[in-house]
Amino acid sequence: MSVTYKRVALIGLGLIASSMFWGMKRGGLAGEVTGYARSAATRDTARKIGLCDRVCDSAVEAVEGADLVILCVPVGAMGAVASEIAGALAPGATVTDVGSVKRNVIEVVGPHLPDNVHFIPAHPLAGTEHSGPESGFAELFDNRWCLIVPVEGSDPDAVAKLRGFWEGLGSNVEEMDADHHDLVLAVTSHAPHLIAYTMVGVADDLGRVTDGEVIKYSAAGFRDFTRIAASDPTMWRDVFLSNKDATLEILGRFTEELFALQRAIRTGDGDHLFEYFTRTRAIRRGIIEAGQDTAAPNFGRATTSNE
Amino acid sequence: MSVTYKRVALIGLGLIASSMFWGMKRGGLAGEVTGYARSAATRDTARKIGLCDRVCDSAVEAVEGADLVILCVPVGAMGAVASEIAGALAPGATVTDVGSVKRNVIEVVGPHLPDNVHFIPAHPLAGTEHSGPESGFAELFDNRWCLIVPVEGSDPDAVAKLRGFWEGLGSNVEEMDADHHDLVLAVTSHAPHLIAYTMVGVADDLGRVTDGEVIKYSAAGFRDFTRIAASDPTMWRDVFLSNKDATLEILGRFTEELFALQRAIRTGDGDHLFEYFTRTRAIRRGIIEAGQDTAAPNFGRATTSNE
Repeated sequence: MSVTYKRVALIGLGLIASSMFWGMKRGGLAGEVTGYARSAATRDTARKIGLCDRVCDSAVEAVEGADLVILCVPVGAMGAVASEIAGALAPGATVTDVGSVKRNVIEVVGPHLPDNVHFIPAHPLAGTEHSGPESGFAELFDNRWCLIVPVEGSDPDAVAKLRGFWEGLGSNVEEMDADHHDLVLAVTSHAPHLIAYTMVGVADDLGRVTDGEVIKYSAAGFRDFTRIAASDPTMWRDVFLSNKDATLEILGRFTEELFALQRAIRTGDGDHLFEYFTRTRAIRRGIIEAGQDTAAPNFGRATTSNE
Repeated sequence: MSVTYKRVALIGLGLIASSMFWGMKRGGLAGEVTGYARSAATRDTARKIGLCDRVCDSAVEAVEGADLVILCVPVGAMGAVASEIAGALAPGATVTDVGSVKRNVIEVVGPHLPDNVHFIPAHPLAGTEHSGPESGFAELFDNRWCLIVPVEGSDPDAVAKLRGFWEGLGSNVEEMDADHHDLVLAVTSHAPHLIAYTMVGVADDLGRVTDGEVIKYSAAGFRDFTRIAASDPTMWRDVFLSNKDATLEILGRFTEELFALQRAIRTGDGDHLFEYFTRTRAIRRGIIEAGQDTAAPNFGRATTSNE
């Protein structure tokens, strides 16, 4: 029953692309899978670990004859890659991407593509704090969401086929429009990442508390922030620059609320704090009930592990 | 070799006290353990699950004859409890606590205590997002830090004995002065908790994105914040009100940095963002090398678990 593309081209070979490759193999979702990465070192690594059936030395070579082309490069590189491959795309091919921002990708990729291909942006909400071709694994998308963001005039059959492909990788799929996607992700991902980066940067930069102390005593709460603040710097730079408006809107709301809580601390308004903290507990319960996290203490971290 | 107190009194029977009880049993660290909680329902639960050798109906009864008294109540309740038990303390007893703030506890507890007891504040850096008497487990303190904060004139033998007790519970112990403790914890725990509470509150309150969407798509980063934002509201209200100065200082630094990053986003300064995000990765590596977190992707969360 699973969807099969005859030839899938992965452009960019990081965590997401490599997890997609192993997931396609697990699910039998593709005939041949070609891959390309800009860096020769990444291509060598891919060849060494058997990532992709064929690693190509140019993006053009990788996409030739492919009926599915997946752009897995940082959002800031999408436009250049689209321009590079546009002339080599097979008529009727589907071009999709895995970028964390959708309006910007549509704007920079769309104009390069010929009319005889289907452009269907998508975004799998999955990742880890690790990056690079060796960090991928087939289960990354299991029970995670993938948001498909069809553009005006997207062919329903091509959309349905791409949906089936993501379901084959283990994802739950929803369709969403680009602007709403970018706002939802600003709340659930982009603002949290920027805030985590900021807090970790502040701790690192504080003269009176050493990095050694921050690290030793991190289990008191801080370490939860460091996981997402260890995510790929290039990817995240591009996310913030390309989802500027929604991210700044959410950060504006965040600082407004933070100032209100700071004021409650300063004035000793315990009721305000207590009510706020009680409300946030309910959200956690919802996430666990929805199967998007574990209820085990500390996320099920082993208590004594340093593996 | 393990340290043994003849009778240990636990005042307050939440996550920390119950974990200490199971840890004392595991390590053979105490003769009899008595316990008291203000709420009759909590005392009933404790009796039902075998938490404490003897659950008492008053704090005074619990501390009588104890050579170690451990205050495990929220920081805001410490002064009242100290005043209540002061007259019933056995001469030569050690009185300690597990509060997340130390200067304030010293100020509100110290003046009530008679001169013939040893007052040695302490703070185990361990916890989970769950609270209450049924949430405790013996392994909570394994390989976690416990900070002992001796006050002026603390008896070295009594301090050494308390250190041995915490080591028996599985902790690594360090001594620190109260003000430095409060600053270190403001960075590693108090500010991160307030920031996490704020972000979760903002997401909950955003009209254009539903709670359902926030919950569904939380795996994109947001869910890491929700664990600590589900911590006990009473405890955390008291922490912020009693470590006001250090928390506000760190939050001041945080907003300063956040504004600088927001400005970089607004002006398109990618280099600033990239350099900042690269620096924060190193802190994460330090935490993993120090054995304070796991390097497994997603903290080792099961990919498909909703347990």
